[in-house]
Amino acid sequence: MENQSFAMKGGEGPHSYLQNSSLQRNAIEAQKKVIEEAIANNFNPIITHTQNPTNLICIADLGCSTGPNTFIAIQTIIQAIQSHYVPNITMANRDNMNLDRKFYKLFPSNKTLEFLVFFNDQVSNDFNTLFKNLPNYNLNNKTYFACGVPGSFHGRLFPKQTLHFVHSSASLNWLSNVPKEIMDRRSSAWNKGRIHCINAPKQVREAYEAQFKEDFESFLDARAQEVVGNGLMALQIPTTPDIIVESSDIDPSTVFELLGSSLMDMAKAGMISEEKVDSFNLPLFFSPIKGVKQIVERNEFFSIETMEALDLENFYAFPNANIFVSIFRAALEDLIEKHFGGAIIDDLFDRFTQKVLEFPEILNPNKFKLVMLFVLLKRKM
Amino acid sequence: MENQSFAMKGGEGPHSYLQNSSLQRNAIEAQKKVIEEAIANNFNPIITHTQNPTNLICIADLGCSTGPNTFIAIQTIIQAIQSHYVPNITMANRDNMNLDRKFYKLFPSNKTLEFLVFFNDQVSNDFNTLFKNLPNYNLNNKTYFACGVPGSFHGRLFPKQTLHFVHSSASLNWLSNVPKEIMDRRSSAWNKGRIHCINAPKQVREAYEAQFKEDFESFLDARAQEVVGNGLMALQIPTTPDIIVESSDIDPSTVFELLGSSLMDMAKAGMISEEKVDSFNLPLFFSPIKGVKQIVERNEFFSIETMEALDLENFYAFPNANIFVSIFRAALEDLIEKHFGGAIIDDLFDRFTQKVLEFPEILNPNKFKLVMLFVLLKRKM
Repeated sequence: MENQSFAMKGGEGPHSYLQNSSLQRNAIEAQKKVIEEAIANNFNPIITHTQNPTNLICIADLGCSTGPNTFIAIQTIIQAIQSHYVPNITMANRDNMNLDRKFYKLFPSNKTLEFLVFFNDQVSNDFNTLFKNLPNYNLNNKTYFACGVPGSFHGRLFPKQTLHFVHSSASLNWLSNVPKEIMDRRSSAWNKGRIHCINAPKQVREAYEAQFKEDFESFLDARAQEVVGNGLMALQIPTTPDIIVESSDIDPSTVFELLGSSLMDMAKAGMISEEKVDSFNLPLFFSPIKGVKQIVERNEFFSIETMEALDLENFYAFPNANIFVSIFRAALEDLIEKHFGGAIIDDLFDRFTQKVLEFPEILNPNKFKLVMLFVLLKRKM
Repeated sequence: MENQSFAMKGGEGPHSYLQNSSLQRNAIEAQKKVIEEAIANNFNPIITHTQNPTNLICIADLGCSTGPNTFIAIQTIIQAIQSHYVPNITMANRDNMNLDRKFYKLFPSNKTLEFLVFFNDQVSNDFNTLFKNLPNYNLNNKTYFACGVPGSFHGRLFPKQTLHFVHSSASLNWLSNVPKEIMDRRSSAWNKGRIHCINAPKQVREAYEAQFKEDFESFLDARAQEVVGNGLMALQIPTTPDIIVESSDIDPSTVFELLGSSLMDMAKAGMISEEKVDSFNLPLFFSPIKGVKQIVERNEFFSIETMEALDLENFYAFPNANIFVSIFRAALEDLIEKHFGGAIIDDLFDRFTQKVLEFPEILNPNKFKLVMLFVLLKRKM
């Protein structure tokens, strides 16, 4: 079966991802130092494109959406690689400078570097907006050559052994599909009256977990073919703590519960059918950290170089409920519109905002327990 | 100066390029045999991506628009390459099969082939529509990996020595810019009352010729860096015969004269200002064949393997004036709308259609002297 295609809200309008991605932006800023360190300590990929006088570095951002976050991440990565590359110095000088030996091989002084960046997202992503906003993309003197790659990252997207650095931020929490069982009325996992697994029967949660595992494994298998030996993958995955300690802590999926109950309210008011809500589920899952760890450890192609929670001070310091809602609206509007039609959207998000206002703790970064997990993987040789 | 961005009409609506590209489609079909021969006789590029167990072939279509013609061209190219590739046979068997020796080196029997296709057009091209219509682009079992590359092909678009086969059809007739002189009131080349160089003073035509030469040379210089040694470029360029023999023959740029006079009629009727028409010129030029030949011969990077007029029987057998006009509308509407606003478009193309109806010889393929020139270039080693 072909994967369903979920994309962020396109264009540059008031509800677009482009205008409503400050949460993701904070995470991109927070990972800057970690990525710089990752590249400084671990970047020595096999160079597969061997023509003189240039070495080609291929970078992919998987789940890039429409910008601007993807451009910031790419800039961080390229600058970090360039800062290791000191052209026009002799090998002897390099030895004196005590540079790591592995960089000699990668960047001999008679070679220049070129960068090819693949921006990937679903076919339904608004690539036109992405391309229009490419920074410094003048005729000459490009920092990198850019291209857009449409398609699901749960399958193959690139030729074998072409990628030297893969980045993916806040994308692996999107599932390829809603788990089948929870859509099946005859199944014990049928998810009636909800749109997510939070506070659902155990079988629903297990179905989500199984789908996350299957998808993440597919992702790793596809990348294992595409990433060169010693190539790096920097994955930023929204997760939850393994154990919720304080009773006042809020599971981040509570957001989906509020949205689901807004939909149920509209069903009860006769504005949409209850059946329509029963058949709608979000293909999104915030895995506990240990779930991510198990999957990555079990895979045979990548070694774990780093796994840490990003230090996101002020990450969730949402100034108000409207901004909080707008971030989820940019991510979910297209998906909801596809199922329910566009007529209910404004009303739905008004109701959702009302529920957030009635539950202000959700805006508190100390209580809303989303953990942005940074995982650095290295392709085994 | 950054190039202006001209793109075909996006989307899939009644005036879109997608629905109105039958003329270009005919040319794509007509070149099929020529491309197959070109690959059979000349395809032995240096392989720059050297990882086992796969050889990577990179193909670019420059000026791809939104489909479907680009997909047909790519399919022709890939099938032609694959038909030379006979996997799982031993070298001895290959000798017995009397295959050309150069293919041994390119395709040893222990390697498989992968294809990466770069679809390029201006940043303003509708890549969303292009991606949506990618054929057979399922999760698994892709014939090729696809990506979109936004930007002007008059400058660099790809890393050095990455492309094995470049295709460009009916795109090099688009100029990077309207020549500056013809926009300058103080210049003897000022193009008052016209939108093209047809039947204009000599200076206007010379300005167009100079711009075409500059642009084509920039194109060749950029590609010389990007195409691997022995790599091929198949260019399909709309041209005119060097000498118009019969007095009843029609210069294809007559189309632009009819469109320009429709605009002047609207100016005279007070619907648009005459100044607005004076400052509008089409960045399009159909070079005489000898002009193309001179530029290609003078360049030092590519050898000419083939240069021939495509045999386009029935190519211009337009069933009627409406279809004729719709093809030019899909190509020119965005450009006109940008300058004059959208309000005049329908009226303008009604007037244009009327002028075509009053000059029915323009629909006659024996009189309308557009020559689709096929040029096969090979990158020198």
